[in-house]
Formats: sequence, structure tokens, C-alpha cells
Amino acid sequence: MPVTQTQAILNGERLALTRILSQIENNTPEGNQILEELFPHTGNAHLIGITGAPGTGKSTLVNHLAFQYRHPPEGNHPPTVAVVAIDPSSPFSGGALLGDRVRMQDLVGDSGVFVRSMASRGSLGGLASTTAGLVQVFDAAGFEIILIETVGAGQAEVDIARLAHTTVVVEAPGLGDEIQTIKAGILEIADILVVNKGDKPGADNAIRALRNMLSLSQPEKHTVMHHGDLMELEGIPKENQPTDQLWVPPILTTIATTGEGVSSLIEEIASHRQYLMETGEWELREQTRLKNEVDNLLQAALLSRLNSSISPKVYDQVLDQVISRQVSPRRAANELIQGAGL
Amino acid sequence: MPVTQTQAILNGERLALTRILSQIENNTPEGNQILEELFPHTGNAHLIGITGAPGTGKSTLVNHLAFQYRHPPEGNHPPTVAVVAIDPSSPFSGGALLGDRVRMQDLVGDSGVFVRSMASRGSLGGLASTTAGLVQVFDAAGFEIILIETVGAGQAEVDIARLAHTTVVVEAPGLGDEIQTIKAGILEIADILVVNKGDKPGADNAIRALRNMLSLSQPEKHTVMHHGDLMELEGIPKENQPTDQLWVPPILTTIATTGEGVSSLIEEIASHRQYLMETGEWELREQTRLKNEVDNLLQAALLSRLNSSISPKVYDQVLDQVISRQVSPRRAANELIQGAGL
Repeated sequence: MPVTQTQAILNGERLALTRILSQIENNTPEGNQILEELFPHTGNAHLIGITGAPGTGKSTLVNHLAFQYRHPPEGNHPPTVAVVAIDPSSPFSGGALLGDRVRMQDLVGDSGVFVRSMASRGSLGGLASTTAGLVQVFDAAGFEIILIETVGAGQAEVDIARLAHTTVVVEAPGLGDEIQTIKAGILEIADILVVNKGDKPGADNAIRALRNMLSLSQPEKHTVMHHGDLMELEGIPKENQPTDQLWVPPILTTIATTGEGVSSLIEEIASHRQYLMETGEWELREQTRLKNEVDNLLQAALLSRLNSSISPKVYDQVLDQVISRQVSPRRAANELIQGAGL
Repeated sequence: MPVTQTQAILNGERLALTRILSQIENNTPEGNQILEELFPHTGNAHLIGITGAPGTGKSTLVNHLAFQYRHPPEGNHPPTVAVVAIDPSSPFSGGALLGDRVRMQDLVGDSGVFVRSMASRGSLGGLASTTAGLVQVFDAAGFEIILIETVGAGQAEVDIARLAHTTVVVEAPGLGDEIQTIKAGILEIADILVVNKGDKPGADNAIRALRNMLSLSQPEKHTVMHHGDLMELEGIPKENQPTDQLWVPPILTTIATTGEGVSSLIEEIASHRQYLMETGEWELREQTRLKNEVDNLLQAALLSRLNSSISPKVYDQVLDQVISRQVSPRRAANELIQGAGL
């Protein structure tokens, strides 16, 4: 009996994987059918979002993370790793800008790693849905660690971060004062904070700024790790240490170009998983994750239904009235929806 | 006879303006009704989008732009200026992070300037629609120049940039290599490129990088202006100069902290407007702008319709089946839409 495509994916066959990933990116009926069959086999992977502003060295960090996952300390199990790298900053390009860059030379030939780069197609809600689909494929195919790398700090990144169990926010020193304002939003989704380029001037300032921002939102003790050494913050009493029931985002420093601090990051990610499991938070996040995914798909389905329900002729007529400023855009939208019987 | 709120806005009364802006941000029926009445009075302002990555000094540049518009060379007409500053990086905060910052000390008391800061409310499509509403109010109220300032380079910023007639993309030296990749997408929406912090090391590199990226997409001559001096690029023959029929995005340098280069930027913006007018491109952009706005409002209206059509009980039941992995998210979305009769 020939092996079905679904079975080939469940077996982790790379050619079948490559094929289904393209089908999902192109939103084909066949891809959605297979996703349907794969879904009951998901729910085992640890989904880790890596996000942050441009210029922080995220990609290099992700490469080192994947490498060190695959080369753990002697005697440890090397988990299989999938990377989904998303570049939503290129709404106009058909393909992924990063798709062709050579990633992780050291990992070439390692069958326990799979890297997929993807560009945004500019569709609202669509990017998060497509990413969710890719992640489900890797999950069903048995990848244990799935790294979801996003560029930037806008709404799209936040939506994608909501797909993850653990969100790592990467910062770097010297990106200007304005970025301090930016961080406030993204900080709230951070489970782990990383100051990359820890050897650059200003790294201490960046840590201090992050610590201050964190303490504004949650006045508990924060731990700072320098390349693996756990340090206590000055002037904070011992009894205020985080308990098992409360996760305080740790602040780590890394040097992605050399890989320093990356093994500590892996330990922190594992600690966070353990925390999620012990507190029942894992289940809660799973539920939120899936709810977000349903909501995103609802939006996408509604939009495609709308596109097929409104006749181009009617649409053009209404638009002409808007352009001549007889009808406001809002009234036009309402009339179109009513006309389409939606 | 008492003056209606709509009439007060058309008269440019500041209290009425403040009130309608809040109503639009909160998407109230009264606000939408007034917007309806204002719409026929729009279409006169020059809408200028200012966008770019965090840390480029955009806000300072916008402040100086507004100031210099209000203080033109002797004998020139100082246009009225409205600023809409959007911070979509803070999806979790209720109010605008930048709302309280003191902007444009020098402009305090100048009744020809109005500044409005706004945070994203995290609603897909909603941010662009709200921004469009604010811009229409300022347009109807007679503001001649409307500066739309956005932070970042994601999909939301691109959507907002689509509201503008002229899009200025701001860069700064020394934001790392990764940002070069980022730019590719945002570059395609740029009518004018500005390298701010022109006095910082690396400014020449930034100009060179931009020039290279531009020439990849459009192999014509690019002009570079240094604080107002028009320079020709090396090695490009004179006959390849841009004609009246082709707009080649100029690359300018500015020092926003001192205001250097800002008057040249104002001249370039005026040139771009003239180009749009002479080529008929202005009309085309108006049509595209309004089409995008109708589409955004269609999406927002559909979503709110969906929310009121699906019973919370049914939604929860379907979600439970997803969480227990009996039903895939996609099947759940389709079932919900069918059940709601949409």
C-alpha cells in the first residue's frame, strides 16, 4: 500500500514536509485537507516565539539556539528542532526575502533540523493563520522544539507571539531612546528577555532600562544572568524571590555571534516549560492559542466569503460615489455588506 | 441658531475638534454620523506619511517639520498643520504612550497647529480605519498639511502609509545590518527617503545602502541632497536625469535635533505634490486611498457582525472540540460561520 502524504509527514519525511509547507503557504484545498488529518497528532511540541526589533541579531541567536539544542551537554537527548522565520516587513515581495539566505551552515545535513522562511503576503489575519498551519505540520511531524522567529514589534508580531508557549523578546544596546518607548508593549508578552550583543557598549544600560520597565509592571525581584551566571539585583530583599507559582521574566545577556549565553537561554526556556506544566498554565496557553487561531481563521474565511459575494460591478459603482465624495467610505462599506446579504 | 458640532468642526474650533477626535477613536455612532457630514468637505489637504524603524528620530523630525511649515521664508504663506502620531507597538495599553509627551514646545499657543497622539487598540484593520477618520476630520476642518507619523515597518504601518499622498521613509545610520533587509519592503512605499542623524558616523554608509537598494528596483538616477545641496551621484550620465513624468525617490539627509535639512525636505514634499498634480497621479492616489479605506471598513464591519451573530455558547462548544483536538481550527471556523448564517 502506498504511503499517503499525511502518513509521510507523520513519519517526518522531508520531501513530504517541504510539499505540505508550500501548500499551506499557498492556502490550497489539498493543504488544508492534510492539515485536517494532521491536527489530532499535534500538541506535543514546545512552541517558542523569538521576537524583537530589527537590528537586535535575532536570526543569529535563533541559529545558535537551534545548533545548541542539537548539541546538548554529553549524555543529554538532542531534541529535533524546526524553525519558522517570518519577515512581515516585506508585504510587497512575493517570496521570502530571507528564504535564500544561508542559515545555519553548521546544521546542513542534520536531519533533526528543518528551517522554513516565509514572507508576509500582506493579508490581514492571514499571516498568523499560515504560521499556525506551518507550526502544526512541524508539531505533527514530531519536531520537539519549534522556534518561531519574527521581525519587529507591531501587531503582526504580537499575533504570532500568541501562537507560542514561551515568548523570548530580544533587545540590543544602542538602538536609541525611542526604542525604550516601543518596548512597553512588547514587554508584556515576554516570558524571557534577552539583551543580545552583550559585549557592546550600552548593554548594562539596556539591562537597567528593561529592569526598570519590568518593575513598573510587576514590582517583584528580577534575576539577571550574565553569560550563565545567576546574579541577584542590588537592593532587593531575598524574601521577594519568585516562588514556583509566579513567573518573573528573567533578563539574560547573550552574544549571538559567539554563542555565549545561549545555553543559559536554553535552560531558562526549559524552566519556563516546567513552570507552565506545574502550574497548569500550559493548558491555559494551549486554549488561548487555539482560540486565537480559530478567531484568525474566522476572519480570513469571512473576508474570502465577502470577496466572492460582492459583484465587481456593484463594488465599482459604490466606489465611484465615494471618490466623487457623495457617499462616505463608511456608508459605502455598510451598503456593500447589506447588498451582499452578509 | 446654535452652531452644530459639524459646523464648529468645519470652522476649525479646537474644542469641537478635540471632541470629535475622541468620538472617532472610540468608534461612537455620533462620531460616525458627524464623519458622514464632514466627508463631502474633505479632499483638500496634502496627506504626508512619515514612517520608519524605531530609533530613527522620526518624532523629532515631525516636530521640526511642523515648526518649519509654520515659519516659512519671509513672504510665504504658512500652511496650517495637523499631526496624527500613531504608536501601534503598544497593543496592550489603553491610551497612547506618547499621548502625554510634551511635543513641540515651540508650537504651543499656535492655533494653526493641532497634534493628536493615538495608540493602537490591537484591532485588526481598526487602526487604519480610525486613522483615516482622524485625517478626514482635520481635512474637513481646513488643515492644509496633515502629517501622519507611524512607528515601525510592519503591515500596520504600510496600511497607514497607504492613506497618504506622499510617504517619507526615515532611516538612521548604525541600526545594524539586519535593517538593510527590512528596508526592502518599506522602500517600495517611499516617495522620499530621509537619512536622519546625518551627523552621526555611518550616515554615508546608510545613504549608499539606500541608493543600492533603490537602484535594484529602479535603475534610474538618484539625487542625494546634503542639508539642502543637490548633488549628482557619481558615474551616472546626465541624460538619465528623471523627467517630469517619472518620480525617482530622492534621498535627503537631515539632523532632526537641530532642524538641518528640514527645509529641503519641505521643498521635496512640495515637489512631489506638484509631480502628483501634473501627472494625474494625485487623482489615482486619491482613488486608491479611498478604496483601501472602504476595504478596511468592510473588514471591520464584517467582524463586528460576526461577533454579534455567533452565540457565546455555540462558540465555547466548538472551541472545546478544538482544544480536545477532535475538530481542527479551520473546520471550527467554517462551522461557526455556517452556523451564524453568514
